Amino acid sequence: MCRWLGYHGSPIAPRELVHDTAHSLIEQSRRAAPDMATANGDGVGLGWYGGDPEPALFRSESPAWGDANLREVAGAVRSGLFLAHVRAATGTPVQQTNCHPFRYRSWLFVHNGYIADFARIRRELLLSVAPELFGNIEGSTDSELMFHLALTFGLEGDPIGGLERMAGFVEAVGRAAGIAEPLQMTVGVTDGERLYAARYASGPVVNTLHVSEEVGALRALYPADERWRHFAEDSRAVVSEPLADLPGLWHEVPAGTALTVQAGEDEEVPFRPTQP
Amino acid sequence: MCRWLGYHGSPIAPRELVHDTAHSLIEQSRRAAPDMATANGDGVGLGWYGGDPEPALFRSESPAWGDANLREVAGAVRSGLFLAHVRAATGTPVQQTNCHPFRYRSWLFVHNGYIADFARIRRELLLSVAPELFGNIEGSTDSELMFHLALTFGLEGDPIGGLERMAGFVEAVGRAAGIAEPLQMTVGVTDGERLYAARYASGPVVNTLHVSEEVGALRALYPADERWRHFAEDSRAVVSEPLADLPGLWHEVPAGTALTVQAGEDEEVPFRPTQP
Amino acid sequence: MCRWLGYHGSPIAPRELVHDTAHSLIEQSRRAAPDMATANGDGVGLGWYGGDPEPALFRSESPAWGDANLREVAGAVRSGLFLAHVRAATGTPVQQTNCHPFRYRSWLFVHNGYIADFARIRRELLLSVAPELFGNIEGSTDSELMFHLALTFGLEGDPIGGLERMAGFVEAVGRAAGIAEPLQMTVGVTDGERLYAARYASGPVVNTLHVSEEVGALRALYPADERWRHFAEDSRAVVSEPLADLPGLWHEVPAGTALTVQAGEDEEVPFRPTQP
Amino acid sequence: MCRWLGYHGSPIAPRELVHDTAHSLIEQSRRAAPDMATANGDGVGLGWYGGDPEPALFRSESPAWGDANLREVAGAVRSGLFLAHVRAATGTPVQQTNCHPFRYRSWLFVHNGYIADFARIRRELLLSVAPELFGNIEGSTDSELMFHLALTFGLEGDPIGGLERMAGFVEAVGRAAGIAEPLQMTVGVTDGERLYAARYASGPVVNTLHVSEEVGALRALYPADERWRHFAEDSRAVVSEPLADLPGLWHEVPAGTALTVQAGEDEEVPFRPTQP
Repeated sequence: MCRWLGYHGSPIAPRELVHDTAHSLIEQSRRAAPDMATANGDGVGLGWYGGDPEPALFRSESPAWGDANLREVAGAVRSGLFLAHVRAATGTPVQQTNCHPFRYRSWLFVHNGYIADFARIRRELLLSVAPELFGNIEGSTDSELMFHLALTFGLEGDPIGGLERMAGFVEAVGRAAGIAEPLQMTVGVTDGERLYAARYASGPVVNTLHVSEEVGALRALYPADERWRHFAEDSRAVVSEPLADLPGLWHEVPAGTALTVQAGEDEEVPFRPTQP
Repeated sequence: MCRWLGYHGSPIAPRELVHDTAHSLIEQSRRAAPDMATANGDGVGLGWYGGDPEPALFRSESPAWGDANLREVAGAVRSGLFLAHVRAATGTPVQQTNCHPFRYRSWLFVHNGYIADFARIRRELLLSVAPELFGNIEGSTDSELMFHLALTFGLEGDPIGGLERMAGFVEAVGRAAGIAEPLQMTVGVTDGERLYAARYASGPVVNTLHVSEEVGALRALYPADERWRHFAEDSRAVVSEPLADLPGLWHEVPAGTALTVQAGEDEEVPFRPTQP
Repeated sequence: MCRWLGYHGSPIAPRELVHDTAHSLIEQSRRAAPDMATANGDGVGLGWYGGDPEPALFRSESPAWGDANLREVAGAVRSGLFLAHVRAATGTPVQQTNCHPFRYRSWLFVHNGYIADFARIRRELLLSVAPELFGNIEGSTDSELMFHLALTFGLEGDPIGGLERMAGFVEAVGRAAGIAEPLQMTVGVTDGERLYAARYASGPVVNTLHVSEEVGALRALYPADERWRHFAEDSRAVVSEPLADLPGLWHEVPAGTALTVQAGEDEEVPFRPTQP
Repeated sequence: MCRWLGYHGSPIAPRELVHDTAHSLIEQSRRAAPDMATANGDGVGLGWYGGDPEPALFRSESPAWGDANLREVAGAVRSGLFLAHVRAATGTPVQQTNCHPFRYRSWLFVHNGYIADFARIRRELLLSVAPELFGNIEGSTDSELMFHLALTFGLEGDPIGGLERMAGFVEAVGRAAGIAEPLQMTVGVTDGERLYAARYASGPVVNTLHVSEEVGALRALYPADERWRHFAEDSRAVVSEPLADLPGLWHEVPAGTALTVQAGEDEEVPFRPTQP
């Protein structure tokens, strides 16, 4: 099981959330948790928007906790929108091109979960990616393929719809191959302006997804920290696992829900896979 | 341009050829040569047969010259049949799964050359791989794909025929896409018993391929070396570039030729791409 | 906390113990255990004796569970004496030169534990290494330094005595610097003939060390496995943590004890640090 | 032989000089040159000053040309003062902690050259580093040790003097050990405000060092590039090898010279090693 976080708000050093908090993503990658038998030690990635429309990517196959370059970069840059991810491989090689986030033009994508029995349906899914997108696939994971299927099915014009069609397609192909519960996912997607997230699984067990309540809550996390004073009120973090134990800080996104974090009000709508 | 070597004969430590000779593969990977503007620093691999039918693989994305593990392993094992390769990437990522040799069951494959304009025809070539072989493709190179096309077209039952059909197919697909000279290759293939090699290109410039004359020549290389005394007479090395300067040691395999190194006489036959 | 295993007996593929058993070293490196908050994901090493007096080394800074080369090499070689180690870094960088085993001539060394407050006394310890051994230190760990101090204090001629003088020296330097409990260690050392191990700590909490009872016990582990039939009766494994749950298989080496595994009877003697 | 570049001026993306120019540092690392038999493929580093007094570091043991993260980071950050380095190892391991730049507090250091017969005098040089600086040494290179000797001899208060005393000390120790020409160096050092460089060797052959004439010259390099219009007049690049072929762009710093690049006029003074 992987873990990820997304941030949307006033520019900060990603290290503040990736490394520095209690239960930071890095600490989560290293430590055993009640729900996790093994470490997330199979790579790490950070994608962030700076001045350019296209986000920058840092990805490493090293365990997140020991990656000195990640620590440096996450501390040196400032970004108002980023996605970070720690990986626990589920069958595909540990290599940089299999690390999240995945990027296409101005888009980034992270995933926690899996396509069940992926090896059996990978070829069919791969052939369904639009030929003009095919060359952007560099690695061999189910996650990168899910991203390119969502792009194929219209993610850029209709993000949540694209994800729903991707999920519906994966489920249809999986079930045709006799896979009872083909999909398990929380995903984070962004175009550099809005941060979209969805929580869904084909079966009854669904990976968790949380969103921070509001910047006041972040301030409560860091009462002594000057930095939070200048934060905009609508800064938000979206995470697969809570980063700190403060009661009231995190709101659990319900299973079967898509979330949009943006300037102004967040939106939550039902996530309904459909066949494209 | 990559470089590779194959060895067939009495068991030796691969390091004797990979590291220790004048103009060894490692030295070739590091040093500039008249024909090579850049180093072969994008990974290295060694596949060898020991006691088991399936060969063992060591592959690393580090430059060959600095890889301490390669040096250790190549010195510690003994093998009568092995393939080694140093990589200069031609557009695909530097990662372990893109390093040669590639393996399928008891087979190993190395390649020096390229499919021209590979990104443009990669998808079509990939879709032509037999579905039951598809899951064995781990990386993203043209070379690994060539191996799996050859397997698709019967390499296991008819090695040189499988390579000819692969070459013919790549040329047909490439030319249909308007690529004038689609294929450049020397390849080495083995099933653990025989070592097959082919030298071919669609155009007039063809990468080189050499085979050592006989073990007497190797003894001449190492007059002071006790090890060569017990070598079988039919030990052979096949190389993309000569490993030493001794006149008379290396025989150049003509362009458009396939070579079989085996117990008994070697065989050279014309290599004629055909459409499968 | 690191973990390690040593094997002395009939030649086997190290993979049988490193990867294949229940609770294998690799599984231990990955999974959370009651006594371990974090994974041993900071590198792995295997040192083995084949035909040469000098052992071969494979060391990698990747997590053990994802290292394809380790799996290949540990399956391809055969050895009657080897040491393997998985690392959890305690303050020094994750890099190949900090991975165990460490080697000097025909000797190998592994360590689980630490020198407390190492940064504070590292310089003094380093200056105490014999100048002619100094150049053999490649990394920056406390463990490698302990090895070279033991060599300085006569390990080669008197292995257990060398370890005792090393331990006594580290404790003296540490206590002079105000460190209450300077040393925590189980170590494994071998010259290619005998396997020495010691279990000791300056304070009351001492890392564990176990030795397998006899080859009959290993046969009980693998009742269906033909390989164990030809094992010599005195084959032994020494491990920081048991590799399987079979009651009666493992004997716990008492704290403050040094163990010698050799052809014939094993020996256990008290381990008594002394000032050199 | 390594290669390095330093930049002092208006904030730019380091990628403009590291990757994008004709004869960029990356291209230099990859291609053979008349003066260089082997590639600079043994690691790469970039240290840059952003908003914080302490510079950020990215260092990788991969060849510079294939490092995707370096390319991303060098394109995403903006800095008015940075040092970049490509490494060709001269006897010490290829690992991140051996990559330049080296950092101490707000200082960065890069080096091209070597201490002759380093293994023989390393211990003595290491013992001469101030104990309070000792813990900052993470790797095993001659270069990192030169930096810490310069710090020991007062680099922070008197940069050029500190370098001169370091050079004098290395020469004295080397000559006492019978080494005829102990030192070969061009070094780049910065405190985040000024960029210091020195060119010196104990013998008659001295590695090269160049400084760009003025920003007008850079504009000539990129006539079509809007970015250069807003450059401050005193932007400068200091390089071990010229990055482009334009006549008149580069001024060769004479052997035995120290250079200071700063706001206002640059300064060149004789570099005279002295015993500390």
